[in-house]
Amino acid sequence: MADHGPIGEVTMSDILAAAERIAPFVHRTPLIECDVLSELLGCRLWFKCENLQKGGAFKARGAHNAVFLLEADQAARGVITHSSGNHGAALALAARTRGISARVVVPANAPAVKKAAMAGYGAAIVECEPTLEARETTVAAIQADTGAVLIHPYDDRAVIAGQGTVGLELSRQLDERPDVVLVPVGGGGLLAGVAVAVSSLWSDTEVIGVEPAGADDAFRSFHAGRWQPQTDPDTLADGLLTSLGHQNFRLIRRLVDDIVTVSDEQIVEAMRLLWTGAKLVAEPSGAVALAAVPADRERFAGRSVVAVVSGGNVELDQLPRGRSGAGSADRDQPVTTGSGPT
Amino acid sequence: MADHGPIGEVTMSDILAAAERIAPFVHRTPLIECDVLSELLGCRLWFKCENLQKGGAFKARGAHNAVFLLEADQAARGVITHSSGNHGAALALAARTRGISARVVVPANAPAVKKAAMAGYGAAIVECEPTLEARETTVAAIQADTGAVLIHPYDDRAVIAGQGTVGLELSRQLDERPDVVLVPVGGGGLLAGVAVAVSSLWSDTEVIGVEPAGADDAFRSFHAGRWQPQTDPDTLADGLLTSLGHQNFRLIRRLVDDIVTVSDEQIVEAMRLLWTGAKLVAEPSGAVALAAVPADRERFAGRSVVAVVSGGNVELDQLPRGRSGAGSADRDQPVTTGSGPT
Repeated sequence: MADHGPIGEVTMSDILAAAERIAPFVHRTPLIECDVLSELLGCRLWFKCENLQKGGAFKARGAHNAVFLLEADQAARGVITHSSGNHGAALALAARTRGISARVVVPANAPAVKKAAMAGYGAAIVECEPTLEARETTVAAIQADTGAVLIHPYDDRAVIAGQGTVGLELSRQLDERPDVVLVPVGGGGLLAGVAVAVSSLWSDTEVIGVEPAGADDAFRSFHAGRWQPQTDPDTLADGLLTSLGHQNFRLIRRLVDDIVTVSDEQIVEAMRLLWTGAKLVAEPSGAVALAAVPADRERFAGRSVVAVVSGGNVELDQLPRGRSGAGSADRDQPVTTGSGPT
Repeated sequence: MADHGPIGEVTMSDILAAAERIAPFVHRTPLIECDVLSELLGCRLWFKCENLQKGGAFKARGAHNAVFLLEADQAARGVITHSSGNHGAALALAARTRGISARVVVPANAPAVKKAAMAGYGAAIVECEPTLEARETTVAAIQADTGAVLIHPYDDRAVIAGQGTVGLELSRQLDERPDVVLVPVGGGGLLAGVAVAVSSLWSDTEVIGVEPAGADDAFRSFHAGRWQPQTDPDTLADGLLTSLGHQNFRLIRRLVDDIVTVSDEQIVEAMRLLWTGAKLVAEPSGAVALAAVPADRERFAGRSVVAVVSGGNVELDQLPRGRSGAGSADRDQPVTTGSGPT
């Protein structure tokens, strides 16, 4: 756990405080009802559009909450994280907003466009070998040198509370209680945070985590009742490759109703549905929650469902191609490269 | 002028009434501030997202206002229009909402997917030769037979007032007066309506129409001070091919500050910017307003600018390809086919 947050488990009051703390710096993203996809999929569908968040992903919420929770003396030493994706850019943005320094340790093979996004927000990029050991050693060495505060991408109370504002915010945008909230799960920061908020507001609403079948450690951990690591992930949803965080798992086990998996083909088809039906650009990880609906239509039939579209950082040139109808999802796989923030 | 609307010029009170009339049936679309494109283009940019409107375009507003203004005896006879695009689908949707019949006269060469969208909302599709004469003859013959009320796509008071709710709504979503509102112009329903609303709310805000250079009759008419027809349009922005309406022109002449043109290359580049920077899917006509900004950066430098993203009905497979940076806009032109509503 980072050294800047309070101890104990994340609660609704942490999320309420986070919402107030980050409000001046992040977008209140739209919650959009989509008649066309509702009709097509046989339920009442809403999208919480974190692809329209600053930085193009929900990560701006947790990063701003963590950075603005730092005491002045901590802030003066700057922040550090390891990330090849959206969290690095979000932390760089939050640090710039507060006027402190940010360092991001990035695997040398990370896409140039992602490094450029982080550097564009003023972060110092430190490259390392593309292994977990190299990441951790590099971070530790820089911390020893500089005293920079580690803001973990997901296994961090302040980050979880910040991501939880997605759940609080959508509750304020809906006129009535939804039956289901679908949330993608990788490290579990977003799912844990949203579960804290939604379960405290609506005890009868199901919170369901959705995970790529090719990186299904949260699914396995949840159903086995004990934490299991992710090894050798294989999915297009490159924001969800990581192992579930430990405190995330404790919250998820207690507050989440189910975790389901979807195939990469189903993820690509969901990206197409978001494009053609909702006019929204989602990266593969951002389409994972919606993918659960056509994957199990019966389960959601006639119910009101909020799907969190968690991010939109995908390159135009790397979108899936082919006809937009169902069944064509296995051609021309997309590759996310963090095309940059919004 | 259709026979269902009041006479005289459209005023702010028509728009206020329209907003109340259509509120239960159309989306209040998000107004999104985009930091990335603001930074890139050197001004403060907002997008009014009518691509997220029902039917994937602003047309739902005017169509619902016109349909719900009909007296019961008119409504009983049903509505008719001619359209190969978004207005036909919007009118079909509005008619279905009110529970009356809709007929749409469509050129035989219109894309199948557009006809399918209209038929999906329950409209009767009547094909005709792809000429203006054939359209008008066909509409007149059906009207003589059925007494159906013509809802013109743009040269109609109720339609103009409905489209004007875009201007009213964005004013309610902004905390302060913008310097400029950019609106695409084809037949002029959206531009005229927005100009009525914005000029009555903020006398110091510039309203600027943006038109494809390949269909520049509004540009020519505005600067010559007299109406001029569009002949042989040649642009990707297939929603903006038509001649300016006559009552639209009277309002535009009086209330709009300027009309500028953009090239198809600039339109395609604006589609890319919306995708990569704002995570929004826009059809070519929907990206026209934004295209004016990089086309004349100096004019907008440091100013707050709202660009209306008027529609998002473009097929995934027909998007422009190539790198997402500037300057690549001349490869692989997109074709809109009204991929369907949102």
